Amino acid sequence: MRIARHIRALDGYVPGEQPKSRKVVKLNTNENPYPPSPKCAEALRSFDPDDLRRYPDPNCSALTRAIAKANGTSADRVFVGNGSDEILSLCARAFVEDDESIGSLDPSYSLYKTLAAIRNVRWTGLPVPRLDLRSLGEGGSPLPVSLFLWTNPNAPTGEFADPKSIAAFARKFPGVVVVDEAYADFARGNCMHLATAPRNRNVIVMRTFSKSYSLAGLRVGYCIGPKDLVDALYKIKDSYNVDAVAQRLALAAFCDRAYHRKTVAKVVRSRRAFTAELERRGWDVLPSEANFVFAKPPAGVRAAEVFAYLRSRGIFVRYFPGPLTGERLRITIGTDGQMGELLAALDALP
Amino acid sequence: MRIARHIRALDGYVPGEQPKSRKVVKLNTNENPYPPSPKCAEALRSFDPDDLRRYPDPNCSALTRAIAKANGTSADRVFVGNGSDEILSLCARAFVEDDESIGSLDPSYSLYKTLAAIRNVRWTGLPVPRLDLRSLGEGGSPLPVSLFLWTNPNAPTGEFADPKSIAAFARKFPGVVVVDEAYADFARGNCMHLATAPRNRNVIVMRTFSKSYSLAGLRVGYCIGPKDLVDALYKIKDSYNVDAVAQRLALAAFCDRAYHRKTVAKVVRSRRAFTAELERRGWDVLPSEANFVFAKPPAGVRAAEVFAYLRSRGIFVRYFPGPLTGERLRITIGTDGQMGELLAALDALP
Repeated sequence: MRIARHIRALDGYVPGEQPKSRKVVKLNTNENPYPPSPKCAEALRSFDPDDLRRYPDPNCSALTRAIAKANGTSADRVFVGNGSDEILSLCARAFVEDDESIGSLDPSYSLYKTLAAIRNVRWTGLPVPRLDLRSLGEGGSPLPVSLFLWTNPNAPTGEFADPKSIAAFARKFPGVVVVDEAYADFARGNCMHLATAPRNRNVIVMRTFSKSYSLAGLRVGYCIGPKDLVDALYKIKDSYNVDAVAQRLALAAFCDRAYHRKTVAKVVRSRRAFTAELERRGWDVLPSEANFVFAKPPAGVRAAEVFAYLRSRGIFVRYFPGPLTGERLRITIGTDGQMGELLAALDALP
Repeated sequence: MRIARHIRALDGYVPGEQPKSRKVVKLNTNENPYPPSPKCAEALRSFDPDDLRRYPDPNCSALTRAIAKANGTSADRVFVGNGSDEILSLCARAFVEDDESIGSLDPSYSLYKTLAAIRNVRWTGLPVPRLDLRSLGEGGSPLPVSLFLWTNPNAPTGEFADPKSIAAFARKFPGVVVVDEAYADFARGNCMHLATAPRNRNVIVMRTFSKSYSLAGLRVGYCIGPKDLVDALYKIKDSYNVDAVAQRLALAAFCDRAYHRKTVAKVVRSRRAFTAELERRGWDVLPSEANFVFAKPPAGVRAAEVFAYLRSRGIFVRYFPGPLTGERLRITIGTDGQMGELLAALDALP
C-alpha cells in the first residue's frame, strides 16, 4: 500500500473560492475589507532581504512575548503557528490517541471534521445549542472525545456563547477544550481569562491574524493555554513553522492597538447596518458577533439560488449545502459600499 | 489523558542554534552566505500590503507552474510546502499506516527519527552505505517500512549516492521513496528524472528554497512525484499552507536562473578550497557534494572540543554526538572570508 487507507478514503477540505480578479465583491471567506495597519506596510518596506538567508526564529520569540504581555501571562504559555489551521492540526495530533475522537459544535467550521478524518479518528458533532455531555463519552462510550473544538463566535452561524457556559463545560470535560476565537475581536466578550487563569488545566484559546488584523495573506495564528499543553505543541511543530516576514509583520499589526480597534469598530458598525437592511427585506438573520452574518432569504427564495445569482453578478458569498446550513448564506461584512452593492443586487433579484 | 502518550514520551527535534547577533560566524545550519536574488528584493519592495488582507493562493499556482515547466512535467505533479519540513510531515501522515514504519539512511537528517516518533510509528535506520533491503521488511518483517527518506547528497555526511542506485532501490521497494534533495543544487547530479518519469510509481523528489536560493527565512519547499501521491499531500495539507509573500519571492528567486547558478558555483568553489585547506591541516574530510563538509580533526583532537572552542570564538559549527557522528563536525560553507576566519581559529587552537 502506498497511500494510507484513511487518506485514500478522504475527500479533503475545500476552502472558499479565491478568485484572482480584483473586480469581484469577495464576501465569501471572512476576510477584512480594510488594509492591514500602516505599521505593516512600514515593516514590509524596511525588511532587509538579506535577512531571508537565515532561518527565522523557530519560536517567534518577539511576537510571543508581545502576545503574552498584552494578555498578562507568561511567554511559555503562548504558541504561534502558521495560521490557526496549523495549530488545529497540531492539537489533533497532540491531544488525541488513536482510539479517541474529536468533537465540535454542529454546524461549525467544517475543517474540524476533515481534521479528524486526516488524524484517522472519529468526529462527533454536538447540535447547537444543546450540549449533551453524555454524548461525549462521559457515560462510558467506547470512543471518548478527548479534544473538543469550540468556535466562539461560532461559524457559520456567528452566534456567541457565554464564556461562563464554556467554562462550565471545560470543568466537566476530561480532555482538552480549544476555544477557536478567530472572530472574538468582533464580539462582546471572549474566553481569554480561562486560558490565562493559573488553575486552568485544559482550556486553550486560539486567535488569528487573518480576520481582525487583515493579514490572511500571511499565515499567523496563536494560542494561549496551560504550559504542559503548549509544550506538547512545540514538541511536534515543524522546526521553523512561521517565516521571518510573517513574524515581523504580525508583530507590527499586533502592536498597533489603535488601528486594530478602529478597524474592528467599522466592521461591527457595518454588520449592524447590514443586518437591519436584510431584515427590512424579510431575511432572517441569526444574531452575529462575528465579521459575517448567517442569513435566510424570505419565504419562497432558496439560498442556493441566491448564491448562484450573486455569483453570476461577481458577488461571492458562501453557501454550505446540508440539512443544518443549506437554508442560509454566510455573508462576510465588507465595506459599506460592498454591502450596498450586494443589497442592490438582491433588490434586483428576478 | 490530555496529552497523547507517544507525544509525552517524545523529546522533540532540536534545530541548530539561531544566535541573534550578526557578529557570529554562522556555519551551523547550512544557510547560504550570499543574499537571495535581487529579484527577491524587488518583489518584496513592490508587494502591495493591501494584498495581505486576502488569503493566499491555496495551491501556489504560479510557483507550481514555473517549477513544472522548468522540470518538463505537469503542474499536477508538483506540490509546494511551508518548507520541506511540512512536506516531510505530510508524507509521514499520508504514506504510513499505523502498523508500518519509516526508514532512512543512518546517519541522516535527524528530524526523520523525530517525525516517526510524532507519527507514533517505528523508525529504521540503514547504515550508510550498506543498504540491505531485507532489513526493510521484504523478508516478512512484522513492521514493514512503507516510507523511505533518502537524503541525497546526504546530511550530515555530504556524500552523494549515484541516482542509478536510488533508482534500483526504488524499483524493489514496495512503499514510497522520498529523495530529499535539499542540497542537490551543489551536487554533480540528482534524481529529478526519476520523479518526472511517466512510469514512476513511487519516487518523490523534494527540493527547498532554503539553501541554494538563500531563502531559509521564508518557508518554501517543493516536491515532484506521481500524481496520486501528490494528490494525497494536497488532501491533507493545511488549506493555505504557504503565505502570499513567500509564494511571490520564491517565484522571483526561482526565475532568476543566472543568479542561482552563479551563487551555487561560488559555494562549490569555496567548498573545494576549504576542503583542501582542512586536509592540509590533517583533517579527514568526507567527499562532499553539499554546501557543507563533514570533517574529522587530526588524531589527538576531539571534535566536541573543537566545537566548544570555536563557539567560544563566535564561530558556530554543528556537532552531532553519538557513535556514528561524534568524531566529526559539520561545517557549512560560508564566504571565503568566513572560512578563512575559521581556519585561522583552528590554527590558533591551543
